[in-house]
Amino acid sequence: MNVLSLQWLSRSLGLSIAIGLMPAALAQTDNLSLTPAAGGGVVTAKVRAQAVDLRDQALAGSKAFDWVESLTTEVGPRLAGTAAEARARDWAVDTLTTLGFENVRVEPFTMDGWERGLERGAILQPFPQPLTLTALGGSVATKEAGLSAQVQVFESLTALKRAPEGSLTGKIAYVGHAMRATQTGSHYGYFGALRRVGASIAASKGALGLLIRSIGTDSHRMPHTGSMRYDDAQPKIPAAALSNPDADQIERIASRGQPIEIHMTLTPRFTGKVSSGNVIAEIVGTDYPEEIIMMGGHLDAWDLGTGAIDDGAGVAITLESARLIKASGLRPKRTIRLIFWGAEEVGLLGGYDYVRRYQASLTQHVAATESDFGAGKIWQITSRVSTEGKAVVDVIAELVEPLGVAPGATDVAAAGPDLTPMIAAGMPGFRFVQDGSDYFDLHHTADDTLDKIEPGNMDQNVAAYVVFAWIAANASVSDWGWQTP
Amino acid sequence: MNVLSLQWLSRSLGLSIAIGLMPAALAQTDNLSLTPAAGGGVVTAKVRAQAVDLRDQALAGSKAFDWVESLTTEVGPRLAGTAAEARARDWAVDTLTTLGFENVRVEPFTMDGWERGLERGAILQPFPQPLTLTALGGSVATKEAGLSAQVQVFESLTALKRAPEGSLTGKIAYVGHAMRATQTGSHYGYFGALRRVGASIAASKGALGLLIRSIGTDSHRMPHTGSMRYDDAQPKIPAAALSNPDADQIERIASRGQPIEIHMTLTPRFTGKVSSGNVIAEIVGTDYPEEIIMMGGHLDAWDLGTGAIDDGAGVAITLESARLIKASGLRPKRTIRLIFWGAEEVGLLGGYDYVRRYQASLTQHVAATESDFGAGKIWQITSRVSTEGKAVVDVIAELVEPLGVAPGATDVAAAGPDLTPMIAAGMPGFRFVQDGSDYFDLHHTADDTLDKIEPGNMDQNVAAYVVFAWIAANASVSDWGWQTP
Repeated sequence: MNVLSLQWLSRSLGLSIAIGLMPAALAQTDNLSLTPAAGGGVVTAKVRAQAVDLRDQALAGSKAFDWVESLTTEVGPRLAGTAAEARARDWAVDTLTTLGFENVRVEPFTMDGWERGLERGAILQPFPQPLTLTALGGSVATKEAGLSAQVQVFESLTALKRAPEGSLTGKIAYVGHAMRATQTGSHYGYFGALRRVGASIAASKGALGLLIRSIGTDSHRMPHTGSMRYDDAQPKIPAAALSNPDADQIERIASRGQPIEIHMTLTPRFTGKVSSGNVIAEIVGTDYPEEIIMMGGHLDAWDLGTGAIDDGAGVAITLESARLIKASGLRPKRTIRLIFWGAEEVGLLGGYDYVRRYQASLTQHVAATESDFGAGKIWQITSRVSTEGKAVVDVIAELVEPLGVAPGATDVAAAGPDLTPMIAAGMPGFRFVQDGSDYFDLHHTADDTLDKIEPGNMDQNVAAYVVFAWIAANASVSDWGWQTP
Repeated sequence: MNVLSLQWLSRSLGLSIAIGLMPAALAQTDNLSLTPAAGGGVVTAKVRAQAVDLRDQALAGSKAFDWVESLTTEVGPRLAGTAAEARARDWAVDTLTTLGFENVRVEPFTMDGWERGLERGAILQPFPQPLTLTALGGSVATKEAGLSAQVQVFESLTALKRAPEGSLTGKIAYVGHAMRATQTGSHYGYFGALRRVGASIAASKGALGLLIRSIGTDSHRMPHTGSMRYDDAQPKIPAAALSNPDADQIERIASRGQPIEIHMTLTPRFTGKVSSGNVIAEIVGTDYPEEIIMMGGHLDAWDLGTGAIDDGAGVAITLESARLIKASGLRPKRTIRLIFWGAEEVGLLGGYDYVRRYQASLTQHVAATESDFGAGKIWQITSRVSTEGKAVVDVIAELVEPLGVAPGATDVAAAGPDLTPMIAAGMPGFRFVQDGSDYFDLHHTADDTLDKIEPGNMDQNVAAYVVFAWIAANASVSDWGWQTP
């Protein structure tokens, strides 16, 4: 998951909480009626029974964990635009082909490459000791000998913004924040801004470098990387994140009132124009092959970990959901398209390329959604669909209710980061919301590894996605409510 | 805590479990009697009341957390024999002097220095990706260009021992293990042997290097260092520990049956003869100043973390216990000696130096104990004392019972790693046993930092140690049962 997709995340959270308190919203899930559930008319009893069967197959034990095990073991880290990401595409193409999917292909695009180098940090004064830090994605390098300077401590991005012009001349700005773990990850939107824009703001005050408290909720010596951007109007200064215990240390020392001098060496490099790509595979529809039900996750992952929860899990969940349909021998009326996005972490590049490539046929995407919030259980559906679309969503909601999933906000378009450009183009929104209470403990760290995934949670996710795909691909509704932007 | 002290740990665990099942042992804590508690005669009612008051002062909120905050912040990592360990001695001397302790001094000794260098690891084949590893303490370096070789995977040290001679020629041995978290840390003794002796056993089969699964119970990308020793009869080969998730990765790849080639670069260096030392401070006794009640923790810590649980906590707990006595204005009959040991992690060097230095007056140490098992709550007392000594231990046990501490094995001499040489010389044993369920999650890793300590647990520990010190220093018993070796 990428910070650029925060808008949808933040929106969904605020709104879903409000909705949760509204009796009218709760009434939509009232199943006390003795008549068939609302929306029952948009799918046949047979399709409904098939969806239940697929769901229960998933719950009985799916292969989703095996897929993420395979991807994280046989490819491991897979930074956008690198040979490792290319190996991930090979892995995906091989896997999808072996499983018998149709139209398996890579849709390539080019991007500006960036790769991490050496990373070293230390407190020089008053209490010499090493610091654990990592470069933010897209940071420029320090000089080879590194950067040593006095630190000015700020408690927040807001406080940094308030610093007078020129007040950071010759200094490194350190900025803390108070991000906390939430079920929905809602703090990421607000506090993540520090990582994204902090360097240029610090540079505008004269700073030589930026050091931030990791945008994360753990307390391990695990710095969190993630993308950043420079404002072209400001000098480009190197930017790194400290692990939370190291940030605590800086703040404890600062509280003693003595000047702090630190050193950091970062040697990332820009690798020029490099290749990335989305991987696509299909189960072609029998009746409306041109109409698309799309789901997926992103294939790239930050280089520090092996991309298990971000986003091997999403790839594995959606892959397994499609595989269950394929293996059942059933054929959907519409085409079910799996998409494994490339270069999500560095700016949703796969998502933007897709919209450019499919501009002419975007409205043939009946429904599209993405799994990219870890490997926790799904507990909510958010959506933004027309009345007609709602009839389909209601069937999906009814069938996933036994999984512990309840409908949430109905005016949230969010469908996953890589779908942000399609949502902007007016696509109706549908999203399964996962429990992300521990997501930002691991997000963008070396600790994003397979051992953090509970296989049973994966099965629950697959059960939900397979219901989504089968119902959406076979319902009588083909327009869930595309909007004119 | 150091692996060399495993004997006492293992003994205490096996025995305490056995004792726990014995009705006879349980009977010793039977407080249903209406007569005064056993042992009441060895201390006056006034001393007992003073101990209760000191205990309750500690529980009301001690400064123990502040001391460990200060040490871990203002000194941070403090590897034995380095300038950082010297700064820790300065910190201790300054702190103890400021608090008004008597006879504050450093007792120096020399040792063979070792310092960590660069550490890099990677899987080269079949699935290229980085590995997170760290050199074991005392390991030789690889060549500057590193060591690349095929890996032979063993599931245990026993399996490695069974490998035929010459079967590892040209290879790196990887050895896993199945260490689990226990309240008492009992698995460390058994599984820690891999770290200590594994390299020379691998070398005896022809191996070029040793890579082990970290001796630890967490699942983070945090390799655990710790001391190792070479058998002089074998070639010295470089030895490193992988984090547990990295070890999982190696084992997953190995299960696929393909050859694994890995690279490791380690550049530690031996720094020749360097200085370490124990720091001592006293509250001199009024009646028997030559009789010593001693407590402390070790001042050195592995270089990866800041030595919060190992063993800043032990230093802070015992320092605060003595400070409470000092601040109360009370004076003990015997001398209360605080000792902060140097160079524990690299072979209990402070403990051995102490025994050499005080050879002639060892039996004047009435009781000595050490806090070196983290910052969890104390839940048990183990001891090995005479009948006379037991009367004092019973009073201590009675007064710490409200803290959730119960008597355990009575034939366990263990008093803490640095006291191993004194116990070997026949000293009676007394130890407060802490809950170490999460100790080996953090032990010897970069993650051993202040945020892992719960201040309330520290206060409970101080409450116990202050009772120990005050009762032991004022009881009528001056020989708890020294044994002739």
